[in-house]
Amino acid sequence: MLVALAGGVGAAKLLKGLAAVHDPADIMAVVNTGDDLVLHGLHISPDIDSVTYALAGLDNAATGWGVVNESWTVAENLRAIGGVTWFQLGDRDLATHLYRTQRLSEGATLSEVTAELAAARGVATRLIPMSDDPVRTRVTLADPGEGAPAEVAFQDYFVRLGHDVAVASLRFEGADRARAAPGVLDAIASAERVVCCPSNPVVSIGPILAVPRVLDALVARRASVVAVSPIVAGAALKGPADRLLRELGYESSALGVARLYAPWAATFVIDEADAALAPAIEELEMRCVVTGTVMSDPAATDALARAVLAA
Amino acid sequence: MLVALAGGVGAAKLLKGLAAVHDPADIMAVVNTGDDLVLHGLHISPDIDSVTYALAGLDNAATGWGVVNESWTVAENLRAIGGVTWFQLGDRDLATHLYRTQRLSEGATLSEVTAELAAARGVATRLIPMSDDPVRTRVTLADPGEGAPAEVAFQDYFVRLGHDVAVASLRFEGADRARAAPGVLDAIASAERVVCCPSNPVVSIGPILAVPRVLDALVARRASVVAVSPIVAGAALKGPADRLLRELGYESSALGVARLYAPWAATFVIDEADAALAPAIEELEMRCVVTGTVMSDPAATDALARAVLAA
Repeated sequence: MLVALAGGVGAAKLLKGLAAVHDPADIMAVVNTGDDLVLHGLHISPDIDSVTYALAGLDNAATGWGVVNESWTVAENLRAIGGVTWFQLGDRDLATHLYRTQRLSEGATLSEVTAELAAARGVATRLIPMSDDPVRTRVTLADPGEGAPAEVAFQDYFVRLGHDVAVASLRFEGADRARAAPGVLDAIASAERVVCCPSNPVVSIGPILAVPRVLDALVARRASVVAVSPIVAGAALKGPADRLLRELGYESSALGVARLYAPWAATFVIDEADAALAPAIEELEMRCVVTGTVMSDPAATDALARAVLAA
Repeated sequence: MLVALAGGVGAAKLLKGLAAVHDPADIMAVVNTGDDLVLHGLHISPDIDSVTYALAGLDNAATGWGVVNESWTVAENLRAIGGVTWFQLGDRDLATHLYRTQRLSEGATLSEVTAELAAARGVATRLIPMSDDPVRTRVTLADPGEGAPAEVAFQDYFVRLGHDVAVASLRFEGADRARAAPGVLDAIASAERVVCCPSNPVVSIGPILAVPRVLDALVARRASVVAVSPIVAGAALKGPADRLLRELGYESSALGVARLYAPWAATFVIDEADAALAPAIEELEMRCVVTGTVMSDPAATDALARAVLAA
């Protein structure tokens, strides 16, 4: 079994590559749920959905989020009656949230619903939330503005504010009481290899590590953990990882991420653009693999997946 | 002020007529919420929506429910992934439920949300739920079938089972603890006239009467209450009112309904087809108005509305 720690879009790309070069039924992706939200009464799991849609070939390459060939009838009508529309929900995407919310209300766990949705979409890779218990990333803004709350929910920061604001700190509400989803700890313990996808270290991988016993399980398997840097030449390819790292006191570089992951990952994959950082990374007692990590097309993605498996 | 007690489609038609012949801003429709449900996490208020859509000119005359020019992208996608689809939700209709559920989750009352949605749809008639507290009609089936629950939620009976089953009894869960929505009791007390629309007596008007103090308020205004029979020539024009009346031990006729309403309505409007029942109805100390009550087109609807106002 290959276990992958996954956030959203970056992870989805690498998982697509891994599923192309490795038996997908032998891959378990443990997906961040810290950025889940309830909006309009619907339970939305953005990272699980990004991964599911990508593996089902339904991801929207043009927008980088949501579903391909999407339509917006509900959203347009919601806008017309004055509803909340800052979190855009397409019609095809909404079916996912309706399904998930209904099944959760019937007593199904998020793990069960995630498996059902993956099966319904024809996804062979095993997808599992990091936890069936609610863990919610909360963001304290450095400068919330007059009368605005200092702490906001993750999607308020990420989507509503367009992550264009300074962050003072993060916390993962509920993480202390959360249990890893059934099978996650065993899978990490017995996996041939654990891959940490090129996701945001603080808001995508961070919540997974905050679930009790996950970090210990990874530390115990450090020799088998391969992490891929989400930072190339000091910048995130997508999203606010670089800015967040700086604001939270880390270095926005592959080396900065390596320092965060060194306690539990023995191998670190960096981009050729960062080859000069390899010696410093190896001083962290990590083996450093230098290769192309920018998944600009399927060939590049599959090549990175092969490099990760060979690492 | 004209106050109208309203269920769904039948009431919506008469309200359309009343709004055409009377200042709509001077009409308050008190709408049944006993058939509300939560599905996919969404708070759905079928009667409020039927009335709102009809008064906004958005009702679907072809189906008798839902919104005109509706599309079904979400429902089709939900069906494709194995979701619950027996309660059909079109894309335009879904925007209403998303709006309502979000606002309720923000702490708005159902009255507030109903007013907001009516305003957003350009409805001048004042629409108010019978109560902001949850009242849920529960149906005990006479013959539920092997292993099936005897008692089901109203929409399970009405939509999922197509009301094609025998009913042993009804109850209005939560009614004993419910309070009439703000303004309802005062409006009944001070109304120039109270109109009971031609809605199902047991499952549309019944829940309104089950809200504490509503029946007393109506009894106190009996002389000003005009009810329109929903039964014509022994049959309901739409829905299971006739069958339900029989199964619950009442007579399925305008006279049977008159007996139910006589304690709180001094005037009863029946169809010309039932003219022969007028003497028996007048024995109930109700004034009986015989006119055309089948709202087959706008002219007939407006004529009935005028007859009700003149009664």
